[in-house]
Amino acid sequence: MSDGRSTEDALVRRIRELTARTLGSGVRVGIGDDCAVLQTQPGTTLLATTDLLIEGVHFRRRWAEPADLGWKAMAVNLSDIAAMGGRPRWALVAFAGTEGTTAEEIEAFYAGALELASAHDTVIVGGDTSASPSGWTINVTLLGEATAPLLRSTARPGDTLAVTGSLGRSAAGLAVLEREHAPGGVEAAHLAAVTAAHLRPHPRVREGMWLAAAGGVTAMMDLSDGVGIDLARLVDESHGGAVIDVERLPLDEATRAVAAALGADPLAWATGGGEDYELLVACDPAALPRLQRGLADAFRIPLTPIGEVTAGATGVGWRSRGREVTVARGFEHFAARPAASGAGA
Amino acid sequence: MSDGRSTEDALVRRIRELTARTLGSGVRVGIGDDCAVLQTQPGTTLLATTDLLIEGVHFRRRWAEPADLGWKAMAVNLSDIAAMGGRPRWALVAFAGTEGTTAEEIEAFYAGALELASAHDTVIVGGDTSASPSGWTINVTLLGEATAPLLRSTARPGDTLAVTGSLGRSAAGLAVLEREHAPGGVEAAHLAAVTAAHLRPHPRVREGMWLAAAGGVTAMMDLSDGVGIDLARLVDESHGGAVIDVERLPLDEATRAVAAALGADPLAWATGGGEDYELLVACDPAALPRLQRGLADAFRIPLTPIGEVTAGATGVGWRSRGREVTVARGFEHFAARPAASGAGA
Repeated sequence: MSDGRSTEDALVRRIRELTARTLGSGVRVGIGDDCAVLQTQPGTTLLATTDLLIEGVHFRRRWAEPADLGWKAMAVNLSDIAAMGGRPRWALVAFAGTEGTTAEEIEAFYAGALELASAHDTVIVGGDTSASPSGWTINVTLLGEATAPLLRSTARPGDTLAVTGSLGRSAAGLAVLEREHAPGGVEAAHLAAVTAAHLRPHPRVREGMWLAAAGGVTAMMDLSDGVGIDLARLVDESHGGAVIDVERLPLDEATRAVAAALGADPLAWATGGGEDYELLVACDPAALPRLQRGLADAFRIPLTPIGEVTAGATGVGWRSRGREVTVARGFEHFAARPAASGAGA
Repeated sequence: MSDGRSTEDALVRRIRELTARTLGSGVRVGIGDDCAVLQTQPGTTLLATTDLLIEGVHFRRRWAEPADLGWKAMAVNLSDIAAMGGRPRWALVAFAGTEGTTAEEIEAFYAGALELASAHDTVIVGGDTSASPSGWTINVTLLGEATAPLLRSTARPGDTLAVTGSLGRSAAGLAVLEREHAPGGVEAAHLAAVTAAHLRPHPRVREGMWLAAAGGVTAMMDLSDGVGIDLARLVDESHGGAVIDVERLPLDEATRAVAAALGADPLAWATGGGEDYELLVACDPAALPRLQRGLADAFRIPLTPIGEVTAGATGVGWRSRGREVTVARGFEHFAARPAASGAGA
């Protein structure tokens, strides 16, 4: 007699137990069959997004706990649903661990993913587990729904460009995590704020749904690769250009304090650091004050105007104190850079 | 001025061009925004499945071309939709290549995935591209629709268990591919048949939809890990057991010829080899002849009865010439094994 049980089956059963308590939201069949069987809401469109996270490229296990990785893999996908103003619903979570990865680590990974998913009424309905010869590999696919999704491609000349929250925090956190020792002379609360921003980002899911319903927003996307890259993508898709004042990019106190301690340029973190998972919004200029008040009232977060959409596919023009400057991508710096002390919103 | 273009953006544009000609089937927004935006059909449920394929675990690039890998990553997911009798609709394809992976290889990978997807009216609507420090990593998520999906958990005592096509071909193909030299004395057509079965499996999508609509099928799943493991999963989910005659497991001529040349046991390939992507069907015994005729007429494939579902969660009992035998999982062999010449349907 063969009983059909194995380590993998035992693991799948455990993940199924962990996720079972969140079943019910349109889930006819969750983990344990060939596919998840899901019931969509009439009158909505389905949103689908997927992200691959690879050890040594997207994270290091030296500074990220398994639960952090589960949280973050869920966060980056939730942020894509948020970017369209959608309601996240169902996640498929695939995990490949190296030899020596323990069942406890895999459970902690799934628990981290579940913690953030549950906070956004999202159910883990499927996945895959595998071995990996070298390095952990994670894939999350997220499904959501929206009645009128906000696209990247519908911004219009004259629209105001604005961002939620503040920028560069995640890059500041990464800079701290990558060092052997924490920088001296920085408040513990500031260090905690920036490292948490990198390890456990909070996707703007509720804010995205609010913005989509508020009216006046013409286009939206999330900032995953840095505003230097992402903004160009939004205006390219909209067949327009943009002019941005770099002094208006919102930087918070923690990010500036860490930058000062490390001798780094916080504006370069803001434009090129990526992984802030804030929302980039194009809106009717007349709607901006109403949107700002609404986000402040409902979520206590700022919506900061940083520039405007221009006519013609001319790319993004970056201005500092009236002069044109170049913002490089990734971790490169401004070619003509303003003093760090002059930066901030 | 920063123009917002990069190697990754160029690649995404190229993949978007490749996939654009297949747009239209319920796709409001495909590749190029934060999420795909999809229109489901009223009256259906949504099916979702995901699979991670990792170099060195699921494939070797020594014997699998990039286009083969794209095909197979799509095939294993299509097979999960087929297993429920669903109609596949949309795919998200994520790819991570190592340093030195060329744009041509990535395009060939996506072209292989597109070739099989298109054959099943399935559109690639999203994905992700990334670097990988060591080894290619692939994730495909597939979405489909079904009006009445066939589950694993609904088989009843007394039901006949049957499989489509033949078993062990993929394992025979893998055994050939893993050798430095092809085995001597085997017909070229037989070698080609088994290696193709491993590299470019044909998921039983149309057969699955036909079986779901035919009536009389009580439960279904696809055979990805081998009938030794998968059958136990089906009966466990159905809170039943099974008795199987190993002599009835269908083996084709090519598989037997390769096994004879390599001195291998084709029945062990059939039960433990996996990756055949045939359908395992539980049905009303009275419906079997009608289902057999239907599949033969419409698709020219056999549906072979191999045993029956028993009452009580007793696992799977394997019989050979009336004696109880043990089939080991994976590539292990029968504890009391029949002669290879006595095997076959």
